[in-house]
Amino acid sequence: MEVKAFPMNGGDGAYSYTKNSHYQRAASYVAKEMIEEAIADKFDVTSLSSSSNTIRIADLGCSVGPNTFITMQNLIESMERKRHSQDCTKMTEFHLFFNDHASNDFNTLFNSLPLGRHYFAAGVPGSFHGRLFPKSSLHFVHSSYALQWLSKVPEDLLDKSSPAWNKGRIHYTNASEQVANAYANQFAKDMEVFLDARADEIAVGGMMVVIMPALPDGVRPSQIMSGLFYDFLEQSVVDMVKTGSISEAEVDSFNLPLYAPTPKVMTQLVQSNGGFSIERMELTDPSSKIVGPLNIPAVVMHLRAGLEGIFTKHFGSEIIDELYERTLDKSAEFSSRLESCCKATQLFLVLKRK
Amino acid sequence: MEVKAFPMNGGDGAYSYTKNSHYQRAASYVAKEMIEEAIADKFDVTSLSSSSNTIRIADLGCSVGPNTFITMQNLIESMERKRHSQDCTKMTEFHLFFNDHASNDFNTLFNSLPLGRHYFAAGVPGSFHGRLFPKSSLHFVHSSYALQWLSKVPEDLLDKSSPAWNKGRIHYTNASEQVANAYANQFAKDMEVFLDARADEIAVGGMMVVIMPALPDGVRPSQIMSGLFYDFLEQSVVDMVKTGSISEAEVDSFNLPLYAPTPKVMTQLVQSNGGFSIERMELTDPSSKIVGPLNIPAVVMHLRAGLEGIFTKHFGSEIIDELYERTLDKSAEFSSRLESCCKATQLFLVLKRK
Repeated sequence: MEVKAFPMNGGDGAYSYTKNSHYQRAASYVAKEMIEEAIADKFDVTSLSSSSNTIRIADLGCSVGPNTFITMQNLIESMERKRHSQDCTKMTEFHLFFNDHASNDFNTLFNSLPLGRHYFAAGVPGSFHGRLFPKSSLHFVHSSYALQWLSKVPEDLLDKSSPAWNKGRIHYTNASEQVANAYANQFAKDMEVFLDARADEIAVGGMMVVIMPALPDGVRPSQIMSGLFYDFLEQSVVDMVKTGSISEAEVDSFNLPLYAPTPKVMTQLVQSNGGFSIERMELTDPSSKIVGPLNIPAVVMHLRAGLEGIFTKHFGSEIIDELYERTLDKSAEFSSRLESCCKATQLFLVLKRK
Repeated sequence: MEVKAFPMNGGDGAYSYTKNSHYQRAASYVAKEMIEEAIADKFDVTSLSSSSNTIRIADLGCSVGPNTFITMQNLIESMERKRHSQDCTKMTEFHLFFNDHASNDFNTLFNSLPLGRHYFAAGVPGSFHGRLFPKSSLHFVHSSYALQWLSKVPEDLLDKSSPAWNKGRIHYTNASEQVANAYANQFAKDMEVFLDARADEIAVGGMMVVIMPALPDGVRPSQIMSGLFYDFLEQSVVDMVKTGSISEAEVDSFNLPLYAPTPKVMTQLVQSNGGFSIERMELTDPSSKIVGPLNIPAVVMHLRAGLEGIFTKHFGSEIIDELYERTLDKSAEFSSRLESCCKATQLFLVLKRK
């Protein structure tokens, strides 16, 4: 399967992911304690490492750091604590696999690996919508803010003869039910492939933690923060068609391959795969650990670091500054909607390989 | 231990390693059959893969390809043949680890991984003069044209008060015995660290194949081709001091961290480590499969791709073109010495973990 890759901004410049990933970092602090609990309660380090004295961990969709290094360090510390609580005196080594698309900036990732780290590190290039590791070779898989990326734009969205043709829009947030269904179907297919591959790769008793944007059951996509931002981006793009910076055809042929499932949908997909038990599924507010009011320019900057690649590839780099300025203006204009939207949109999912 | 890294030229431009590694490739054809024999005769695929159904292979000092991909493909095919000859019907998966310094261009490496490959690939950044993998986790280690790089320039060479001060020279080829000894001692230390790390990482019964430049027992460094080229480079640098392009102090503070051991020395180092049995040790002519007379410009071009990084770092990029033009002139002038030098300088070493 060919999978489209839109890497985060590489390097370490002003718009780089490295310098603009503190919102993801804040979100991962919220997840940190939940991961610690999952390991303490349900991850049997001693028995999983008994045959090889090695625990193999993969971070799927790791980007270029530093968040992945912080998370991996926390994981290892949690596992060490668990091991001591199990009175395990054998030496355990940790083998960490940092995965992302081959177009990810692995050179930056490798050159920022923490000095004095207590693990062996490897980079794994390739799409997680497919196999990446030998059978039963992993003990713990982590994936944070990666599974919302669809493997491709659903084809119907670009088909003028389809009821799911997404004319004049770039996402499903405010689109027709047919468009929303096309997105949902693509997500379901992607998750099926993803879960099949992970069920092959994770040893029995191994754990997978998935953190990703989600839509609370019963809430509309336009009522959560990411939906609002996609809406502001869409309005900005449409305004730029009016001023002539972008053509109508360019907008009609562009759709953001991003999806936020509901817990109900996620539960069904995991159950239908059958390889995993759901140990915990919870929605939390990823901004709950950020002190003070919402810093809109910072959020837009973070959005830019994550999405600039995909916009540039389709519309060209010359429209990017204007697009983000317009999006920032709209975000400020409608800040009350951002402030009052539904905040519990971070899915925390713990699965165990049956 | 801090290890100095001088990566091959990255990217795929005219002077890139990717476009100028055909001499290494020719050399690896010579080694190909010898590797096939070693696997057929002495590598027990079935028993090594029995616990996990996985064979884990590492290429240490892989650079950016394509040679590493060709070699790895050959390795896997040899192992598959061996497996069939052993009537093994179980499915075996191959996990390949491509290692080089973190400053190696892994982005180029990852983007040139063969499509449709029948193995799982990972990149491992870091010096092989130290641990890179968990204990007993590897079954086969390959390293071609990498171990000649010392982890650092021996300190005495830069010490004006030392008898090993290497004034006016850039290598040991024509230098004093003290200089040669300083190089030999550094190589011995590096090999000790290298073999200790590999003895930890390779499972009992696992194999290591090392291919590297060597000096036949009883032959002088100036009688082999690499020695002659270092001599021409040294003469060129000295000429450039005379014309004022380079300062004397710059030459005195520069030494190529490259060493070619004799089989006798290599045997002693492996025996003193104690973790490996020597299954085969042989010197061959790496150019034996190249048809026609020696193509001197191609050899100098290949030398440039491999050494440009280290010369640029010390002398600056502005002297590089002149340096290689002068080296090419000298190589042409003394082509008879190149033609008549001792050719059996490729060490092929097969070790088995005891």
